[in-house]
Amino acid sequence: MRLISYEHAGARAVGAIDGDEVVDLSSTGMIPTDMVDAIAGWSLESALEAVRQGHRRPLSTVRILAPLRMRKNVIAVGRNYRDHAKEFSDSGFDASEKQMIPDNPVVFTKAPTSVIGPDDPIVLANDPTGTTDYEGEMAVVIGRHGKNVSPDDALSHVFGWTIVNDVTARDLQKRHVQWFIGKSPDTFCPMGPCITTRDELPEIRSSWMRTHVNGELRQEAPISALIFDTESLIVTLSQVMTLEPGDVIATGTGLGVGIGFDPPRYLANGDVVEISIDGIGTLRNPVG
Amino acid sequence: MRLISYEHAGARAVGAIDGDEVVDLSSTGMIPTDMVDAIAGWSLESALEAVRQGHRRPLSTVRILAPLRMRKNVIAVGRNYRDHAKEFSDSGFDASEKQMIPDNPVVFTKAPTSVIGPDDPIVLANDPTGTTDYEGEMAVVIGRHGKNVSPDDALSHVFGWTIVNDVTARDLQKRHVQWFIGKSPDTFCPMGPCITTRDELPEIRSSWMRTHVNGELRQEAPISALIFDTESLIVTLSQVMTLEPGDVIATGTGLGVGIGFDPPRYLANGDVVEISIDGIGTLRNPVG
Repeated sequence: MRLISYEHAGARAVGAIDGDEVVDLSSTGMIPTDMVDAIAGWSLESALEAVRQGHRRPLSTVRILAPLRMRKNVIAVGRNYRDHAKEFSDSGFDASEKQMIPDNPVVFTKAPTSVIGPDDPIVLANDPTGTTDYEGEMAVVIGRHGKNVSPDDALSHVFGWTIVNDVTARDLQKRHVQWFIGKSPDTFCPMGPCITTRDELPEIRSSWMRTHVNGELRQEAPISALIFDTESLIVTLSQVMTLEPGDVIATGTGLGVGIGFDPPRYLANGDVVEISIDGIGTLRNPVG
Repeated sequence: MRLISYEHAGARAVGAIDGDEVVDLSSTGMIPTDMVDAIAGWSLESALEAVRQGHRRPLSTVRILAPLRMRKNVIAVGRNYRDHAKEFSDSGFDASEKQMIPDNPVVFTKAPTSVIGPDDPIVLANDPTGTTDYEGEMAVVIGRHGKNVSPDDALSHVFGWTIVNDVTARDLQKRHVQWFIGKSPDTFCPMGPCITTRDELPEIRSSWMRTHVNGELRQEAPISALIFDTESLIVTLSQVMTLEPGDVIATGTGLGVGIGFDPPRYLANGDVVEISIDGIGTLRNPVG
């Protein structure tokens, strides 16, 4: 199932994409209008029944929102592809950091106020340093509570998969040492367009992630190349903290970000960033 | 006004402390039972009327909770007192970090799942590395939305002040490079006991923060010694992100954390940590 949060006639709903239609699951009373609530109480049987009963309308007549209204920060992982870790290191970003490939996941967060939906603009004015960069990423959506999750159980905690553009103000990322500020300007976390549930896409490993800027291919990475994969990240995080339904873990970006070029190719007014992952779709955002 | 979130007879309420009594503000219908909602809709006149009308009971008969149920991560600042920045550097924690005193605030976050209330235990089992350390901190509670807040306006965005123990798993903090994991184990963010509103404590600068472990004074710092003060942090954060009612900014710790000793004095089973700030109170938590 490919689930979206959307707005139609001023009301919010959770829907399932079926071809060029969306099925309003919330109208059936079986699925809440808020995606986090929907995930927390999810039953595949009810959802399938809601797909049968729900009102259908053309997808083009609704406004697709970010799939989740976050109740905590987006969890995000840095330097999680070897070739990106190398390009990041080669850019001279962090001369003090000797270790290019991390021994342990490098984990930071992005503020909920940074999350926007498909087609919403990434607002450059929120980065006063003018060093705004894109980072295409596969993101894991957690389905149920988990603490001390074992590697064998980890995938069972995954509700589904989505796409995140981990937009970054490079100068702020560097200047503040810890990355939260550089990763959290308003509009710097495009998310969507949908969540593909795990029953539909059991294994994301064989998918590829591609980022285009103004139609030019900039990033192309197999999800299988992640240094720390979905299971490993869930195990590591849940060893110390309880994971909850609706948590999002953006797993890190591949080779080809703007700072990897010499000179850097930061985002500019009028640019369009599109991130595609097989089995999920394309997250498209203009830059303004 | 010194506001608490508390539980009595299974129900949650917002209350005001008056001597050894608590006034149930929520029972009047004028103040919501959730503190973030209460802050978002705050009017001092209504609150004062609620204090006049509200039912009173002995403070000893209620269970005081963390003042806020966080809707995003706790924002926290590192190395924000000169003598602590030096002790942290001298500990050899981060040999690659040449700059002891930061030019810009070092900002990270703590997961909402780490927040606990007064008297709740800090659970050492959530730090498998056995390097659990305390950090007494003054925390700013934001009262209203703010973006691009000017220095002159910054204090008007402060709803009040509370206390945070920024408990840290030192080995995890180091191992993962970015601090989110080391700062976010379950129970590693004691908060409270109350929020002292800005009308009661207009200026926190003249207060002192003191941390005792098992009755022994470990930290003693004037809030006036902050490198980046309340106004400065609000200006810096709001330059890129929208601050919202109920946001918490833990402003950093002073000299005297466990890792500053040689050998380090980490927390152990049976310890009791008490953090006091003039005008707010004492946040006490056992370690188990």
